[in-house]
Amino acid sequence: MKGRVILRIGVDVGGTTVKVGFVDDYKIVDRLVVETKKETLFDDVLRETKKYVDSKNYQIEGIGFGLPGHVLGTYIDKLPNVGIENLDIAPIVNKYFPNVLIKTTNDANRAALGELLADSDKTASGYMITLGTGVGGGLVIDGKVRDGSHANCGEIGHMFIDYVHNYKCTCGLEGCLETVSSATGIVRLAKEYFNSYKTKLDKNNLTAKAILDAAKENDELGLFVLDRVAFYLGKAISIIELAVDVDTFYIGGGVSNAGDILINKISEYYNKFAHFAIKNINIKRAKLGNDAGMLGAAYLI
Amino acid sequence: MKGRVILRIGVDVGGTTVKVGFVDDYKIVDRLVVETKKETLFDDVLRETKKYVDSKNYQIEGIGFGLPGHVLGTYIDKLPNVGIENLDIAPIVNKYFPNVLIKTTNDANRAALGELLADSDKTASGYMITLGTGVGGGLVIDGKVRDGSHANCGEIGHMFIDYVHNYKCTCGLEGCLETVSSATGIVRLAKEYFNSYKTKLDKNNLTAKAILDAAKENDELGLFVLDRVAFYLGKAISIIELAVDVDTFYIGGGVSNAGDILINKISEYYNKFAHFAIKNINIKRAKLGNDAGMLGAAYLI
Repeated sequence: MKGRVILRIGVDVGGTTVKVGFVDDYKIVDRLVVETKKETLFDDVLRETKKYVDSKNYQIEGIGFGLPGHVLGTYIDKLPNVGIENLDIAPIVNKYFPNVLIKTTNDANRAALGELLADSDKTASGYMITLGTGVGGGLVIDGKVRDGSHANCGEIGHMFIDYVHNYKCTCGLEGCLETVSSATGIVRLAKEYFNSYKTKLDKNNLTAKAILDAAKENDELGLFVLDRVAFYLGKAISIIELAVDVDTFYIGGGVSNAGDILINKISEYYNKFAHFAIKNINIKRAKLGNDAGMLGAAYLI
Repeated sequence: MKGRVILRIGVDVGGTTVKVGFVDDYKIVDRLVVETKKETLFDDVLRETKKYVDSKNYQIEGIGFGLPGHVLGTYIDKLPNVGIENLDIAPIVNKYFPNVLIKTTNDANRAALGELLADSDKTASGYMITLGTGVGGGLVIDGKVRDGSHANCGEIGHMFIDYVHNYKCTCGLEGCLETVSSATGIVRLAKEYFNSYKTKLDKNNLTAKAILDAAKENDELGLFVLDRVAFYLGKAISIIELAVDVDTFYIGGGVSNAGDILINKISEYYNKFAHFAIKNINIKRAKLGNDAGMLGAAYLI
């Protein structure tokens, strides 16, 4: 009989699929994908995982869950995009894996941990900023995810940053970072300034990707929008860094696919606004993509 | 022979005096004050402390130092108001206390820890904001002081907050929190608006204390300045809380002597600007005064 291999499992719960990563020494060595069905989600995932673990003769140290919403310990308050609320997952996990360690966190936090583990020494501190439909964030202090005293740490999409347009945010406040730095915010800015700059873009078919692609081809409107997005992000990072002082900021999410042109501009504005003691810190593009969630979740344990 | 009592020592280094607290179970049970002489400061303090410890037959678990400046481990980079730079204090400490544990941090951080230990459970998280000549800050995460990856954590006096006046700050940036919320900032605002509001204040003799005292007596200018100071602080706290999510903010320093009228106004603006998930957090006046530094320094160990 082969010796049993001890692994951590990282579960990344998304609205369409649930990704299960089997992690050893900071590497995902095996993975499963399970369709997200809200009625039976955790039973489905854990049954399949248990079957797989048994077939491989793995031994499991613990299971970490990255969950897209508000979570307190093993108790899910609400996962809006999955349609699950008021559920304690501990009994379901223990049905398949008795006595295993269980940890949970929200998605931006686990992605932050995943990026940091893949990038730096394992006790460093980092901030992940996810630029998607909204703007999310996650904080890792000395190698440990910080959920925060109100399970709200990293919700920097709703920090006040824009006093020029002061757009109304979905959260009810005005001038939030999300209103000018998310994919939605990029389209909003392009519409606002559409008649002020020369452009090849189609006003009726604006997407964040099209706008940022145009910027790369020196489209005037595209470049202006990119400049504003980087301005707000650079300024926001200069404030966050004073408050918490981490080694590295990781920029992820779909908007970060714009790549160097965006990251370099953010760094430029950061250095303009940063206090003299913290100029030239690391601001990097996140590199793990979908794997960050699984890796970070596994190392919650 | 009496049994030896095991204590922690907290040393609070200031520009005029050095305060040494002997701490047992989160209480300062004994104290020494030594005059600050920059040439012989650490020798003076440690010689006197050693003499005292021996006379009481105390045993020492460790010594924590709160130092007003930039410090890396036991190495002092610069203490501007004391006139000491490039000094490793470990050999001096070990001359008097061989093999004792030594920890250091800057002043706002140790004050944050002191306030939190005196107020909350010992593993809570808190942010101290010190409103003096400048604005300082200190962060405690899960009961541990955070100096930060660049020993710059908590320098929130230099976060961008004021886009209306955009005053030039001593740090070279513009619109810093310090320019509108420190004692200096309060006087600056009173001068700016002196002719816009009715007041009994003397324009040639404006102090932060006089302005805040006038506010308590319903002086129109005093009330306006207090309102603006609280507006900027409330807004700043709403941003910091998204970035790091602590249990409690402690407001200290000379300006905080204005008391409830200031703290209540800050809370009011905080709740106006705060994300819905973090409304009504604890914002309290710091209560330890000078003792916070000694207590916090002692519990660095």
